[in-house]
Amino acid sequence: MSLTQIHVVEVGPRDGFQMEATFIPTDLKVEVIDLLGRAGIEKIEATSFVSPKLIPQMRDADEVMSRIRRFPGIRHTALVPNVKGAQRAIEAGAEAVRVVICLSESYNRRNVGLGISESLENCRRICEMTKNHDIGCEAILALAFGCPLEGVISEERVVGIANQLIGMGFGELSIADSIGVANPAHVRRLIRKLAKEAALAHYSLHFHNTRGLGLANVLAGIEEGVDTFDSSCGGLGGCPVVPGGSGNIPTEDLVNMLEEMGISTGVELALVMTAANKLQQFLRRPLASYVLASGTRKQLFEGAAAGPPAPA
Amino acid sequence: MSLTQIHVVEVGPRDGFQMEATFIPTDLKVEVIDLLGRAGIEKIEATSFVSPKLIPQMRDADEVMSRIRRFPGIRHTALVPNVKGAQRAIEAGAEAVRVVICLSESYNRRNVGLGISESLENCRRICEMTKNHDIGCEAILALAFGCPLEGVISEERVVGIANQLIGMGFGELSIADSIGVANPAHVRRLIRKLAKEAALAHYSLHFHNTRGLGLANVLAGIEEGVDTFDSSCGGLGGCPVVPGGSGNIPTEDLVNMLEEMGISTGVELALVMTAANKLQQFLRRPLASYVLASGTRKQLFEGAAAGPPAPA
Repeated sequence: MSLTQIHVVEVGPRDGFQMEATFIPTDLKVEVIDLLGRAGIEKIEATSFVSPKLIPQMRDADEVMSRIRRFPGIRHTALVPNVKGAQRAIEAGAEAVRVVICLSESYNRRNVGLGISESLENCRRICEMTKNHDIGCEAILALAFGCPLEGVISEERVVGIANQLIGMGFGELSIADSIGVANPAHVRRLIRKLAKEAALAHYSLHFHNTRGLGLANVLAGIEEGVDTFDSSCGGLGGCPVVPGGSGNIPTEDLVNMLEEMGISTGVELALVMTAANKLQQFLRRPLASYVLASGTRKQLFEGAAAGPPAPA
Repeated sequence: MSLTQIHVVEVGPRDGFQMEATFIPTDLKVEVIDLLGRAGIEKIEATSFVSPKLIPQMRDADEVMSRIRRFPGIRHTALVPNVKGAQRAIEAGAEAVRVVICLSESYNRRNVGLGISESLENCRRICEMTKNHDIGCEAILALAFGCPLEGVISEERVVGIANQLIGMGFGELSIADSIGVANPAHVRRLIRKLAKEAALAHYSLHFHNTRGLGLANVLAGIEEGVDTFDSSCGGLGGCPVVPGGSGNIPTEDLVNMLEEMGISTGVELALVMTAANKLQQFLRRPLASYVLASGTRKQLFEGAAAGPPAPA
């Protein structure tokens, strides 16, 4: 393990908020995103430009993207389903767009009504369009470790789609396990294969804590040289088709693990926790974030430094 | 990572149950322990022989240890605070006893009213006594990664105490982080140092999920060659002095991770989940166990194999 710096990509305002039944007020969305920007998270997936009919929670995408504060070195991205969404994102000030392609034919059809080859053509058009506007374009390879409809997804398929996306001009690929079926051994195998057979992209990893393996998977990814990981403030998110499916890796827990290990993230954990606490208060339920509940080791030991309490 | 087999030590019936305010009926204790034995968990910490005044939950220790079913290859251990407790454990049929020593002077005094050197002397007497009865004796080095009263515990101190225990005849040492302050880098450093400077023992690791790092710490331990890990059915347990402190690594989540990685545990996960479900029903709260809530990948994919549902 030789990496000394890891980049955190915050996906809560998109991947997390979209799962919430209660509409999160635009003011609170902006406040949370601005806190995460102030915390120093280099890339924040701020919203998605989808049909408000399909995902009502994202109906204020234009307003959110326009109102959030810009910080030096912090990029705000948006998820877009098509060229029209990408145009809206660019007009609202997104610094990069992200497109999703599901690696299972049946899930991709169920998700967006298109076959994988049609979705790839869609990715190509979005990528071309963003290049004309000189903003970033990234692809998320969803269900890269398995699909609730098709089961195991082969590593060959991931490599094949990755190479097609690279051929279109995508330089940033996120390998995503939204249903929480990855394990550290699978992560290692897949990353090794991608590094060998689809090397012309920069890879990031996106894990869910569904079976509690999120941070162990991150560790495996780091040991294979991956330096960028998605996470979600407060651990928000989930997967609509997975029973009991818990959310993304909490950003608090990810940053805490990395900093405790002596790996720099550049993220001010206290501000992320402030943001998570605001969401927890609004949503009126305890979020699935360990550090939010327990505090950090440093907080515990600062109490210790104040002197031991009298023996009980 | 070359280990292909990992040994799981179930500590829920002791480390978990003792934290519960509601008395768990002896029948249920026995039923759960027998399910875990049937599941094939090689070592089960079934109870502790402490003062019923101090820990009322363990007041049925003799009855539990006498009544549980014996399975070939499964050993039932008991935690004991002193020679008297060890005698009770042996009389009740324990196949090994475990003793705890806290690596922080102030916490050890708070916990048992003794200094570390007095506790070491106590360990020596228990170890001698068990040798005369030809049963196993193991030591748990508690707070090996940090103490809520003293903060950081140096690796030198862990090595020093380990060597003293080895000198007394202890061959099995459990390195424990009951307050959840370990991280994978710390685990690697400490295990490397123990392997170099206190090599004459077999080491196991005991983690809590307080900051969500339990399974990541296991992964780091495995990569340093540790082949034995404590865990708790349903993730029961905690630490009385840590705010928001969640429990041990859930046995379900540990077994699931290992088996998913192709590492054999010899444990039948379905039976562990049955046991955890029984506890969850009795305790009337959702336990902090991911696999218990979400099911396994295999269960999800078996649904997939039955054919995709109609598109929504």
